[in-house]
Amino acid sequence: MAELHGSVSEPVLDTMNFLNEITHRYPDAISFAPGRPYDGFFETEQVITHIRRYLDHLAEQGGSPNDIRTTLYQYGPTAGLIRGIIADSLRVDEGIDVPAESVVVTVGAQEAMLLVLRALIAGPDDVLLVSSPCYVGITGAARLLDVRVRPVEEREDGFSAADLEAAVRDELANGRRPRAFYVVPDHSNPSGTTMGTEDREELLRLAERYDFLVLEDSPYRLVSPGTPLTTLKSRDRTRRVVHLGSYSKTVFPGARVGFVVADQRVHDADGGQHLLAADLTKIKSMVTVNTPSISQAVVAGALLGVQGRLSQLNAGAASYYGDAMREMLRQLDARLPTARREALGVSWNEPTGGFFLSMQVPFRVDNDQLVRSAEDFGVIWTPMTHFHPGTGGQHGIRLSTSCLTPAEIEEGTARLVRFVEAQSAALRPAGRAA
Amino acid sequence: MAELHGSVSEPVLDTMNFLNEITHRYPDAISFAPGRPYDGFFETEQVITHIRRYLDHLAEQGGSPNDIRTTLYQYGPTAGLIRGIIADSLRVDEGIDVPAESVVVTVGAQEAMLLVLRALIAGPDDVLLVSSPCYVGITGAARLLDVRVRPVEEREDGFSAADLEAAVRDELANGRRPRAFYVVPDHSNPSGTTMGTEDREELLRLAERYDFLVLEDSPYRLVSPGTPLTTLKSRDRTRRVVHLGSYSKTVFPGARVGFVVADQRVHDADGGQHLLAADLTKIKSMVTVNTPSISQAVVAGALLGVQGRLSQLNAGAASYYGDAMREMLRQLDARLPTARREALGVSWNEPTGGFFLSMQVPFRVDNDQLVRSAEDFGVIWTPMTHFHPGTGGQHGIRLSTSCLTPAEIEEGTARLVRFVEAQSAALRPAGRAA
Repeated sequence: MAELHGSVSEPVLDTMNFLNEITHRYPDAISFAPGRPYDGFFETEQVITHIRRYLDHLAEQGGSPNDIRTTLYQYGPTAGLIRGIIADSLRVDEGIDVPAESVVVTVGAQEAMLLVLRALIAGPDDVLLVSSPCYVGITGAARLLDVRVRPVEEREDGFSAADLEAAVRDELANGRRPRAFYVVPDHSNPSGTTMGTEDREELLRLAERYDFLVLEDSPYRLVSPGTPLTTLKSRDRTRRVVHLGSYSKTVFPGARVGFVVADQRVHDADGGQHLLAADLTKIKSMVTVNTPSISQAVVAGALLGVQGRLSQLNAGAASYYGDAMREMLRQLDARLPTARREALGVSWNEPTGGFFLSMQVPFRVDNDQLVRSAEDFGVIWTPMTHFHPGTGGQHGIRLSTSCLTPAEIEEGTARLVRFVEAQSAALRPAGRAA
Repeated sequence: MAELHGSVSEPVLDTMNFLNEITHRYPDAISFAPGRPYDGFFETEQVITHIRRYLDHLAEQGGSPNDIRTTLYQYGPTAGLIRGIIADSLRVDEGIDVPAESVVVTVGAQEAMLLVLRALIAGPDDVLLVSSPCYVGITGAARLLDVRVRPVEEREDGFSAADLEAAVRDELANGRRPRAFYVVPDHSNPSGTTMGTEDREELLRLAERYDFLVLEDSPYRLVSPGTPLTTLKSRDRTRRVVHLGSYSKTVFPGARVGFVVADQRVHDADGGQHLLAADLTKIKSMVTVNTPSISQAVVAGALLGVQGRLSQLNAGAASYYGDAMREMLRQLDARLPTARREALGVSWNEPTGGFFLSMQVPFRVDNDQLVRSAEDFGVIWTPMTHFHPGTGGQHGIRLSTSCLTPAEIEEGTARLVRFVEAQSAALRPAGRAA
């Protein structure tokens, strides 16, 4: 019998498995854990509509029935069928003006992260800096490739250029090469913070000064209410930004279509040059060969239906998610007014969009606490420690509002506050309980 | 301006790019290069039919409209939605009887290769052995992960157990751990050889004796005429075989759905155990998160339409490809009868199925020869050197018959023989030309 030893322990899936197990064990608990989009915006038949729209588009572009059949059925170009449609969409929707050749279509933003890390990190002295707490997808891809990760802790209000610069200088002083800095500038997962305009400019200046790239991942921009700040990529005059894209929130997750914009010039050994996107394409040929044509067709159809304006396609979703976030903040404020939360030592941030907010509590938060919260209080959330590549986050909780109804948010917040009150009370010496 | 140095040089895509460029430059040349399925079996509308059949199946299984919507639209299980349907198909079609839990659905067999290598290869002393010449996907995945590859050269009739054993012993003697042996047992890409029954049993004995796994990749079995030999996996009584699966030839390439059967037991540090498939699932969460639901739906619909019998679905294709291969062999034999080919020093094998045959020629074959062949003789093929991880193949040519009409095969063979005659003649001293 072939018996193997050792195991692959990966926080990405361990976290998901643990949360799934808790959710399964306590089916009546209200869960602020999943960062999924709300199902209600989907309609099964739309998938067929999108595919047909893309096929019609190919015909309008002059494709014969046989050409169209080949496009759908055969191996496709590794960099993607719909690069031009994506580039057009980025131009009208995000002020990102890049040639189609700088776009690589990927199986979700996850594959894009893997490709970029594989292309940029060449040896053990190369370092990926990440804003921390951090999306588990990027740290997972780094672990798969044995990439050294240096977390840069967010402050209460998010990104700090000074802290990033200090981390970069420290890495350089230790003989290492900071190659890239990964950040979700808008409504970050997990913390919910948004990087201000000044910080965006300062980040680009730092990237230029210290010769690293910025990996911009911003999946919540177009499903958030109001006008977002402009992307790092649209401000990028020196090709310092690699923009990672996902259609999981703006079209749907099951399509698994993402992309990367990589218009950086790479010098060949023989004096020529090519785009970083071409290197990513080569690496992609060793990961998935190409992104499923059928998935690309669905996403292309969705984009073509709104002339590339995902913001328009998602106007209703942005409003819905904005309402959910505001309702959550209103409920928290009502149940833990300023004086009470200060007495307890509890605080939270107030995101203007996105799926997540973060709460700080006076007690240490771990998986045991989560089990207690689910069992005794009927409410589930994610310990922030799951998102820290280092040791931080012991007092943090991530709360997701994206797929709950207003009634669930109201009842869930009531339960959460009871849990937080009880745990905080347990910290206080007997006789001093409020 | 961000300017990067160095490049990612990958034979996989370099080969494809070079062949694409040649094909583009000589549009009138007949090409024996592409290993694609024949387009004529596809019909655009079938994609929609397959999706609807899968959705109907979900409804028959008791799924509500909302459940079905969620299945199609949301993030799905990392190991796949259609593991059970695949396991059922393997049981009826391939005599592979494994639980659904041992199946992981992947974005083509390419992703499966990456996952398996990442799970099995733990350090610089671990070695992947490959039958050589070798499919470029496995060597590409190995290169991406910096995995040490040891080629085991095929003999004229294919796999040699004695040569594999010698290579394994040599690796062990050098302090390394042979972890796995990759092979395409049926109608191999690129050589077209098929492993005999005795060799299949001997390979499994070697795997047991020397404690390595066999990575069985066999995408051409069910698109070949006649009854195939049984798979290594179906003969595998000691869980030594990891079976890699692809639907690119049996359903269609654009779906990008493959799978891996990994029922090996892995011991945890804490004394428990789990299936290797669970480790592959964890790694997959860092590569693509999950295989697109829409692609899985298409493949599931195709499988459900024939009760899992891919052999039945592909009866027409198998016959078509068999005819093409026989026609190619007939044409070669007619234009280079035994005496003539022996005088020239030319030979080829006679595959009974699959997409490829290999030809040996007396002159050295390289990209320059290919350009000459395309320009002066109007015929394109692939130098076998592209498929050798080591230095072999300098006199080999891969010929693909899968997507040519009988007329193209006839004319293409005539051109190929003219090229081979001319190159061989150029080798002979003046005055001795036949």
